[in-house]
Amino acid sequence: MPRYKLTLAYDGTDFHGWQKQGTPGGPPLRTVQQVVEDAVRSVVREPVTVMGASRTDAGVHARGQVAAFTAALSIPVDRIRRALNARLPADVQVTGLRRVRGAFDPVSGAVTKGYRYRLAHGGKAGVQRPLFDRHVLAWTPYVLDTDRMSGAARHLVGEHDFTSFARRRHGRESAVRTVHACTVTATTRHLVRVDLSGTGFLYNMVRIIVGTLLEVGRGRIDAGAVPGILAARDRAAAGPTMSPEGLCLMWIRYGS
Amino acid sequence: MPRYKLTLAYDGTDFHGWQKQGTPGGPPLRTVQQVVEDAVRSVVREPVTVMGASRTDAGVHARGQVAAFTAALSIPVDRIRRALNARLPADVQVTGLRRVRGAFDPVSGAVTKGYRYRLAHGGKAGVQRPLFDRHVLAWTPYVLDTDRMSGAARHLVGEHDFTSFARRRHGRESAVRTVHACTVTATTRHLVRVDLSGTGFLYNMVRIIVGTLLEVGRGRIDAGAVPGILAARDRAAAGPTMSPEGLCLMWIRYGS
Repeated sequence: MPRYKLTLAYDGTDFHGWQKQGTPGGPPLRTVQQVVEDAVRSVVREPVTVMGASRTDAGVHARGQVAAFTAALSIPVDRIRRALNARLPADVQVTGLRRVRGAFDPVSGAVTKGYRYRLAHGGKAGVQRPLFDRHVLAWTPYVLDTDRMSGAARHLVGEHDFTSFARRRHGRESAVRTVHACTVTATTRHLVRVDLSGTGFLYNMVRIIVGTLLEVGRGRIDAGAVPGILAARDRAAAGPTMSPEGLCLMWIRYGS
Repeated sequence: MPRYKLTLAYDGTDFHGWQKQGTPGGPPLRTVQQVVEDAVRSVVREPVTVMGASRTDAGVHARGQVAAFTAALSIPVDRIRRALNARLPADVQVTGLRRVRGAFDPVSGAVTKGYRYRLAHGGKAGVQRPLFDRHVLAWTPYVLDTDRMSGAARHLVGEHDFTSFARRRHGRESAVRTVHACTVTATTRHLVRVDLSGTGFLYNMVRIIVGTLLEVGRGRIDAGAVPGILAARDRAAAGPTMSPEGLCLMWIRYGS
């Protein structure tokens, strides 16, 4: 049967994350996987499982989540995509759909992932928390020194044990990951963007990295302290976990 | 007693408009006036009425709504503003607060108002409806010719009887209003902004004007037909009423 690769964008605000979840005795929670599966089933008219590459948390957004399903369909992909979008709610969109080889696995096939975290900061009277963008922009009342943050970010690039930057009991055998890039950009005077890419990310890793960069930006941690935080292999050594609304899964790259 | 002029920004998505409304036998609907009044009362610790300049509809946003209240307060305005913002929900903000003369009336004192309507348009495969901005951006699947829309907009500037561009039974004695400016700007290839300013606007007037400009942009009405639509003084002559989410009350100017 044909296998399809979906690229999805979604506003995570009103979802309990990607992964399907039931409540004991109650209706299933509203998750992205659930609503995408419902849309695919309604087009395919058969039970179908949609497997996603990344289990984004509640409130986390995606512009480039990748998922896959197998179904006996004979209509062109463009029509399938339009049929899916017509059935999906306003906060999820299929941005790409194509046929792939039957063995395509969105999880194990992923080579590199890119995340972006967006953060507004203030500190002076008159700078308000975000209003219209509050679902996609985290907020801190402190003034951030983005040069210091960039200096700290450079220490994270490369292959490291990221135990300090993962939630305890992250459930993976090894915490060694390779970060290809970690850049801090001041897009406006009060807006900061952190772009991260790498071979894989542990549970809460991006949000803890940004929380640590925030502490550096506020002047509570020295940029030069990052190698020591990595070496500590202790969650307590790093900064706080940032809130989910600033985070967006931007893209996932696959091998040929 | 001191009188205060408030400038307010709000995301209208989750509000039943500005004006306080009760439901028969039920709790009051969530309106901006209600939540602002609740915040003011909690700071003043006395019943206070907050009067707004513009009764924005459900789903309509504001960056520069003006309101006023009278209260016996002896703390500096900056502290009052911070106290209000600490009490307001995440979708309303006080962006300005100052003392004004006791007779200040936000409704009758308003000299000019400015509105902006934002609209995404598509038409070709691949252009999606807005996702992250869907609360602040209207959407039409048609391709719009913004030059034609600009041509039509120019006919609306000046003093006219806007009966054709108001909801029937708009409740005002005269439908004569002066539009100072009506400009159509293509901010990107798929994003259009209509900026309107004038002495006052009838019920639904901005949304019907934009609905008419949309028909011109699609090619269903000729730009040169606008003077005839004005002369008809008939709501049926104009285009449809656009949805509220694209509309934002930008500013209100007062005399000295």
